[in-house]
Amino acid sequence: MDKITLSHGSGGTLMHKLIDSVIMKEFDNNILRQKKDSAILTIGKTRIAFTTDSYVVNPIFFPGGDIGSLAVHGTVNDLSVCGARPAHLSFGLIIEEGLDKSILEKIVRSAAAAAEKAGVSIVTGDTKVVERGSCDKIFINTSGLGEIYYDKLSPDRIKAGDKVIVSGPIGEHAISVLSGREGIEFKTKVKSDSAALNRLIEKVLKASGTSVKFMRDPTRGGVATTLNEITASHKFGIALDEKAVPVSDGVGQACELLGFDPLYLACEGRVIFIAAAKEADKILKIIRKDKNGKRANIIGEITKEEKGKVCLNTAAGGRRLVDMLSGEQLPRIC
Amino acid sequence: MDKITLSHGSGGTLMHKLIDSVIMKEFDNNILRQKKDSAILTIGKTRIAFTTDSYVVNPIFFPGGDIGSLAVHGTVNDLSVCGARPAHLSFGLIIEEGLDKSILEKIVRSAAAAAEKAGVSIVTGDTKVVERGSCDKIFINTSGLGEIYYDKLSPDRIKAGDKVIVSGPIGEHAISVLSGREGIEFKTKVKSDSAALNRLIEKVLKASGTSVKFMRDPTRGGVATTLNEITASHKFGIALDEKAVPVSDGVGQACELLGFDPLYLACEGRVIFIAAAKEADKILKIIRKDKNGKRANIIGEITKEEKGKVCLNTAAGGRRLVDMLSGEQLPRIC
Repeated sequence: MDKITLSHGSGGTLMHKLIDSVIMKEFDNNILRQKKDSAILTIGKTRIAFTTDSYVVNPIFFPGGDIGSLAVHGTVNDLSVCGARPAHLSFGLIIEEGLDKSILEKIVRSAAAAAEKAGVSIVTGDTKVVERGSCDKIFINTSGLGEIYYDKLSPDRIKAGDKVIVSGPIGEHAISVLSGREGIEFKTKVKSDSAALNRLIEKVLKASGTSVKFMRDPTRGGVATTLNEITASHKFGIALDEKAVPVSDGVGQACELLGFDPLYLACEGRVIFIAAAKEADKILKIIRKDKNGKRANIIGEITKEEKGKVCLNTAAGGRRLVDMLSGEQLPRIC
Repeated sequence: MDKITLSHGSGGTLMHKLIDSVIMKEFDNNILRQKKDSAILTIGKTRIAFTTDSYVVNPIFFPGGDIGSLAVHGTVNDLSVCGARPAHLSFGLIIEEGLDKSILEKIVRSAAAAAEKAGVSIVTGDTKVVERGSCDKIFINTSGLGEIYYDKLSPDRIKAGDKVIVSGPIGEHAISVLSGREGIEFKTKVKSDSAALNRLIEKVLKASGTSVKFMRDPTRGGVATTLNEITASHKFGIALDEKAVPVSDGVGQACELLGFDPLYLACEGRVIFIAAAKEADKILKIIRKDKNGKRANIIGEITKEEKGKVCLNTAAGGRRLVDMLSGEQLPRIC
């Protein structure tokens, strides 16, 4: 009998297949079929984005963040990459019986601080408690709403020559969670990049006319999976330049030691922009002025060749295909 | 050290205290402070309701429903009792590794059927998988949006003489979940009342002018807890008439056998209306015409005496206070 495995939740091809064969099949509708980070709806005359995410990260506290702030950042970012201004969040808790109240307080306080910093309100919530052993400490669902203020995001606008920009070093969230979980210390300490990107994104969009054509935050499955999602079923490919991909020393060391490829590691405070070539340098400058974007870089470009695929020009001078993984390297990363 | 207990999630005073002392304290804002089933927001010029609920019911299949349809009904009802027309739902899954794919399919199919029947679309979702033993089979979060079409709901409009109407027999959901969980069979089989009430409520509101002053669905903690939430910190009391409270034979037998009070048992397809006395009979007729409202009844009225309290005139001719429980009789009822 078919069983659900950890890989079904990891952002790779197995998850996409499960979603297509079970979820999309049953819930089929036009909005869901867009497969965006948020659903785009019209309420009255206002276009809004609506999104949901459940957070099951293990451990609940990790270098650079915790499940509370992560739950706020993740949903704020899912709205932001759809051109929406995040405004209202829900906060649903599932708590394991026996959790210290002080831990709950710490997590809620962290979520509240993250919400305040991002300028969003938590307006509705729910609290469930399950028996000891029926969940792992605490799970949080945040759903979010925001008005669309930039409606020029569409993969159909992407064309050969457009640039792929990443807002900072990749994989820091995944490595920080891994080190927190396993108690591994790397030579250079890695902190999660978990952060709300709504302000950074808004600055870019306001300053660059209609040049930004697409955005996505490379969470589960990392940059490789996100770029594959963008090229999939489209008539363009992406050529990445390995030398240009920002990777911090700590992440680089961890990948060398553990055999991970940073392109597949989750970020929680990075965004990928696809933008017209002529504006790419200007956009890069704007991103780099933001405290979450100091090490942003142009990491590749859209190509006519190898339609639907992502290729990497390696630092060693070779060229290889960057596929979507079937599962993921690390479960419960968010 | 203070620990979270099952009672903190059961809808009673302990949950209210936890929410006040931890959640409300940190997330404090005007919308959250309304403590409604949904947050009421203005998007553009449109007033909307926004709500969230996580479902952890055990067992996931019970007589009359399952976690999939329950997750849709519950969120549809939370929007409906705020005078909103439910439109868009999110669907967040947390799945335990090893769950049969066929069970997931059955649950998703049931949720899809419930959504279609209620006339709502599931527009965005999320799927997480956790290791075996890190959650109990499957948890679902649904958040929902709907436009407000009736804005006359306020406890401030309630006055002495107003009638309390319940749309059907109470406690069926709780007893059906209990019988499913423990494998107990009662002489008369009890099926959950789980149902979407948006159409029933809309019929009532459209036909009764501004007579309906307040609505709430008596889920966790049952009718007793819901009515105590309504009277709390208000200058009126509620007098209930025990003989008038509809209780099915099966629920009555189960309560006798197990020592439960039906007033504290959760419903998932019932709504309580507080309405002007002169329109109460008309409203009752409208409810009874709906297939989910056949056994609706006027169960009490608003009193000037015993401010903030709920009193029961018992079938035996006595009178007793109906308090909010501190915990609940049954954990993981929804």
